[in-house]
Amino acid sequence: MTNSGTLHGVGVGPGDPELVTVRAARLIGSAPVLAYFAKRGRRGHARTIVDAYVRPGTEELPLHYPLTTEMSFADPLYVREVGGFYAEAAEALAAHLSAGRDVVLIAEGDPLFYGSFMHLYVRLKDRFSVRITPGVTGFSGCASAAGLPMTWGDDVLAVLPGTLAEDDLTARLQGTDAAVIMKLGSNFPKVRRAIDRAGLAHRAIYIERGSMEGEVVLPLPEKTDDASPYFSLILIGGEGRRP
Amino acid sequence: MTNSGTLHGVGVGPGDPELVTVRAARLIGSAPVLAYFAKRGRRGHARTIVDAYVRPGTEELPLHYPLTTEMSFADPLYVREVGGFYAEAAEALAAHLSAGRDVVLIAEGDPLFYGSFMHLYVRLKDRFSVRITPGVTGFSGCASAAGLPMTWGDDVLAVLPGTLAEDDLTARLQGTDAAVIMKLGSNFPKVRRAIDRAGLAHRAIYIERGSMEGEVVLPLPEKTDDASPYFSLILIGGEGRRP
Repeated sequence: MTNSGTLHGVGVGPGDPELVTVRAARLIGSAPVLAYFAKRGRRGHARTIVDAYVRPGTEELPLHYPLTTEMSFADPLYVREVGGFYAEAAEALAAHLSAGRDVVLIAEGDPLFYGSFMHLYVRLKDRFSVRITPGVTGFSGCASAAGLPMTWGDDVLAVLPGTLAEDDLTARLQGTDAAVIMKLGSNFPKVRRAIDRAGLAHRAIYIERGSMEGEVVLPLPEKTDDASPYFSLILIGGEGRRP
Repeated sequence: MTNSGTLHGVGVGPGDPELVTVRAARLIGSAPVLAYFAKRGRRGHARTIVDAYVRPGTEELPLHYPLTTEMSFADPLYVREVGGFYAEAAEALAAHLSAGRDVVLIAEGDPLFYGSFMHLYVRLKDRFSVRITPGVTGFSGCASAAGLPMTWGDDVLAVLPGTLAEDDLTARLQGTDAAVIMKLGSNFPKVRRAIDRAGLAHRAIYIERGSMEGEVVLPLPEKTDDASPYFSLILIGGEGRRP
């Protein structure tokens, strides 16, 4: 690895450009190559967040997700398609790294929590030097937007994807003190039913675009429709020890 | 509230001064009053982290915890002592806010996850305008230090305090995909037994002082003693969907 570049996995936080860390801003501003994931034809959310920190003339390497919206995660075609995409993206990064250029790969939130970064990281970490810069998670950004204390004293926190089955979600909500529920989208009506069944609707807060323009913070019972975009979460704050 | 100051609750991240957000650095650098929790006779960890960002001449308001090391959380004397301390600290902040001065109260990690900030927040939020700036959590800092992907695809994450009973910890570890175990200290031998019983020792990573000087990252089976200071965590990464 001696003459190879370093891969930097850099979290850029929940959306507000000022919630980027000082180290992330420095790495982005001096990146020989700036890589980011994006939907085809879009600029990519992470890239938009860091706009103010990018040096003019920086070499950019957008990594365009294949179109898989209609495919199930369980479909072998999905696995082959997306696996192939990650393998190709890793090789695109490897070409720069092998040529001695550092690559800064930015990720929304924190790179190691549900991040696409991890799929390239596991493919490259044994071949190149990697340094990871943590970021503010989306759920921290949402809790701050809502002004909602999440965990007190000895509270247990569960981070739950809305993709879980309704009974499983209900049981997990009943067994925790505090919860973050992500991946709402089309799972929203099911998630709402699970929260109702767990008797937690009065403590649930719905947050859309936390820390971003167009931010919405609503007690769940006041949300009358079932529409919930990608950047939305439900938070249930703990009620633990408070002297 | 019109002429009152604003209370800023500001997360300063896991320890490395560069892991402070750009907004936190700006707020700290322009704070009329900078408040922070500290043990008596110490400077306070949060205050140390932000040293480089404090403007010379800033008015500082250290909030010294009462000495309660030998007291149980369940002891009514503890509750009275610590409750009294938070009430007094809130009034010290209120005096500045009422006089029209903004107060920046810094907190390690994120202010709304297990933070002392929350105890002042709930006492002041109905009287003054409050704005919260999220920070990088200690567990994100540790995951990055360990280079450990925490959650993939639909993984469930549990954040568990080491204070839980051994059977409860074991059951919760068996029922989750990924886990963060905090508050080790004297709970360490019990936590290790729970991880062993859950069959997860081979996936557990022990991290001490993540992102700070003197950082230690060890697979749990390689940690031969039971000593674990305040800034230590155990992480168990998920193994979910990876195309």
